[in-house]
Amino acid sequence: MPTQDSGQQPVPSGSARPPGLASASVPPPGLASAVVVGTGLMGTSIALALRGQGVQVWLSDRDQGAAKLAADLGAGEVLPEAGAPRADLAVLAVPPHAVAPVLAHAQAAGLAHWYTDVASVKALPLEQARELGCDLASYVPGHPLSGRERAGPAAARSDLFLGRPWVICPQAETALEAVTAVTALIWCCDAELVHADAAEHDLWVALVSHAPHVVASAMAARLTGAADQALGLAGQGLRDVTRIAAGDTALWVQILTANAVPVAAVLAAVAADLSAAAGALAGSATPPDAAPEALAAAAPGEAAAGAQPESVITLAGLLDAGAAGVARIPGKRGKPARDEAVLQVVISDEPGELARLFQAAGDAKVNIEDVGIEHSPGLPVGVAELTVRPEAAPRLIEALSAEGWPVHPG
Amino acid sequence: MPTQDSGQQPVPSGSARPPGLASASVPPPGLASAVVVGTGLMGTSIALALRGQGVQVWLSDRDQGAAKLAADLGAGEVLPEAGAPRADLAVLAVPPHAVAPVLAHAQAAGLAHWYTDVASVKALPLEQARELGCDLASYVPGHPLSGRERAGPAAARSDLFLGRPWVICPQAETALEAVTAVTALIWCCDAELVHADAAEHDLWVALVSHAPHVVASAMAARLTGAADQALGLAGQGLRDVTRIAAGDTALWVQILTANAVPVAAVLAAVAADLSAAAGALAGSATPPDAAPEALAAAAPGEAAAGAQPESVITLAGLLDAGAAGVARIPGKRGKPARDEAVLQVVISDEPGELARLFQAAGDAKVNIEDVGIEHSPGLPVGVAELTVRPEAAPRLIEALSAEGWPVHPG
Repeated sequence: MPTQDSGQQPVPSGSARPPGLASASVPPPGLASAVVVGTGLMGTSIALALRGQGVQVWLSDRDQGAAKLAADLGAGEVLPEAGAPRADLAVLAVPPHAVAPVLAHAQAAGLAHWYTDVASVKALPLEQARELGCDLASYVPGHPLSGRERAGPAAARSDLFLGRPWVICPQAETALEAVTAVTALIWCCDAELVHADAAEHDLWVALVSHAPHVVASAMAARLTGAADQALGLAGQGLRDVTRIAAGDTALWVQILTANAVPVAAVLAAVAADLSAAAGALAGSATPPDAAPEALAAAAPGEAAAGAQPESVITLAGLLDAGAAGVARIPGKRGKPARDEAVLQVVISDEPGELARLFQAAGDAKVNIEDVGIEHSPGLPVGVAELTVRPEAAPRLIEALSAEGWPVHPG
Repeated sequence: MPTQDSGQQPVPSGSARPPGLASASVPPPGLASAVVVGTGLMGTSIALALRGQGVQVWLSDRDQGAAKLAADLGAGEVLPEAGAPRADLAVLAVPPHAVAPVLAHAQAAGLAHWYTDVASVKALPLEQARELGCDLASYVPGHPLSGRERAGPAAARSDLFLGRPWVICPQAETALEAVTAVTALIWCCDAELVHADAAEHDLWVALVSHAPHVVASAMAARLTGAADQALGLAGQGLRDVTRIAAGDTALWVQILTANAVPVAAVLAAVAADLSAAAGALAGSATPPDAAPEALAAAAPGEAAAGAQPESVITLAGLLDAGAAGVARIPGKRGKPARDEAVLQVVISDEPGELARLFQAAGDAKVNIEDVGIEHSPGLPVGVAELTVRPEAAPRLIEALSAEGWPVHPG
């Protein structure tokens, strides 16, 4: 891997212009070039945002096809096998368990001056990086709080992090320039910087993200054996409670096991409350002051005796069952929700903008089946998610693009 | 209570015209008049829908103020203390445990020819009605699958049941004319008739409605003791999983205890899966083939040892804690979600309709903060839920009403 300073090199000719938000093309100080390692949803979205600010981006992925697809989407250029000039920043967008080994490898190859990652767990990668002897002065552990149910580069959006918190956990050893480079990255992504201790971060996300995912899966898993008529009675409440259970099982098993103890504590507490509620409802001997252990132990036997499918006891099995359960819930029109296309349109947050958008859709004779709006705190733009029939999607993309809106197929 | 046939009596002069969907004013055959007992969200919504079809409606509630408010909203006339002519149908919109006693009392008073209820549990009220010696020939147990987080007559909407399933559970004794009257009621509410056995119904709703409510509460309850920074990282996933936990605790305790055994079975199964997941994550001795009892018993001890608040073991306490937890999640703009006004607008399901709507909002200089659309399977209309700043709501209501849209303040 070459080690020249990237500050001197020209932007390669012929690189695709990004389809992102900004018209700016002057990269922020200290971040003229970046390598994105791992071009899934997160990595490609970051690459798109960086390109939108004129940063030169190299793309790398174990799966060459994924890197190529990201490049075709305008996220940068595939990192040549012969390597490229040392970049200012390497963004490791790989699963939690892969962060430390990939960091060690990248540092050994001299891939960049500074390093960060985007894994949703921070203590474990940091501990493993220490064990592997990584250079902690050049590494800033990071976590942008954003995501989608869909995975892969095709689901990427340059505005995925718009207005969302982006936690960084600098250590005592961390160089100030490393923090500066990562701060520039967060600025490029229009996210909001949050400082936190790694262990504290892990407790927070266990509570607001990781445990809720498993709880949604456990509820959704109950639907796999349900009668069709039961699912026919499902309303928005069930859809909301279970929506996030439709995630990527393999990735979530990695995330959950990497943050095992904090997640387990939340899940155990939720399980204890649910067992107590079940015990109280079933009228078994469960006075309010009974020991939680007794309440919890009383419940599963009743579950086995009931009409419910038996307990799924591997984590991956539970997540898979959850995804299968969600897939059984009829969509808003009483049809499977997958018979829809979703387009993301970046809109300005002002009166009349939605009217223009829907006027353009109406002129194109496209019926919007559903619409959601995600605002960005403190920013003048938001994202409208338009749900349409799959056959109408190309017509709508064409119509909205012609009017100047950045449209992202979901 | 007088017992004349309502078929002969005139609609009282001066009754408010309903703000509902339909312009029709000819009541369906066999349903010229109705008494709605219990003017909360469900009862008042039904009354509004009936008035929209020209049915004469009498309103009764233990809380005279609630009945008066419903009448002021155009839902009908308050039932005089001296009584009214016997109505065609009495709709008992009271909590599950109150259905049978209220039915017995209403039948003794000769309130109507036919009776139905709208409680979300069916086996218990039916069993209690038998025990109380109610006339089962004139009673059709019913359950419209609809609702909102908000309660009370002010939250009522004539289109609350639009396109939603409405389960009825006729018994062997049930008179055909009773079923006909309830079918006419369901037609007035634009809902979809579903026949079911009462016990089967209870299993179905335990799975798709009652247990998910408790699961959402148990997750949300974990947020009550959380750090502010943790809640600052919350995304749409957490908001969705916990949304329905913001319900009415007293009503939900009644619903859950009235459907105790089926709900307990689902909750116990979910608790067992979560305990198993917690045990697996915590690395305790939890091989995949361990007995569920052992797995469940292992978890609560860890919860107590963790940083989480201790288990809440009364059902009402859990639901209250859930509502309190939901209230702590920041809204989309990083502010409490309660600093918003929501308007429901009935729209036709065709291209251009949303453009007209947003054009009107833009012309009124009102910025739509969020929008959701609820479609109605098989019907040409839907409901757009527009979220705006509270101060902008009156201006938007005026603008949209002026353009002919039925607008319902949320």
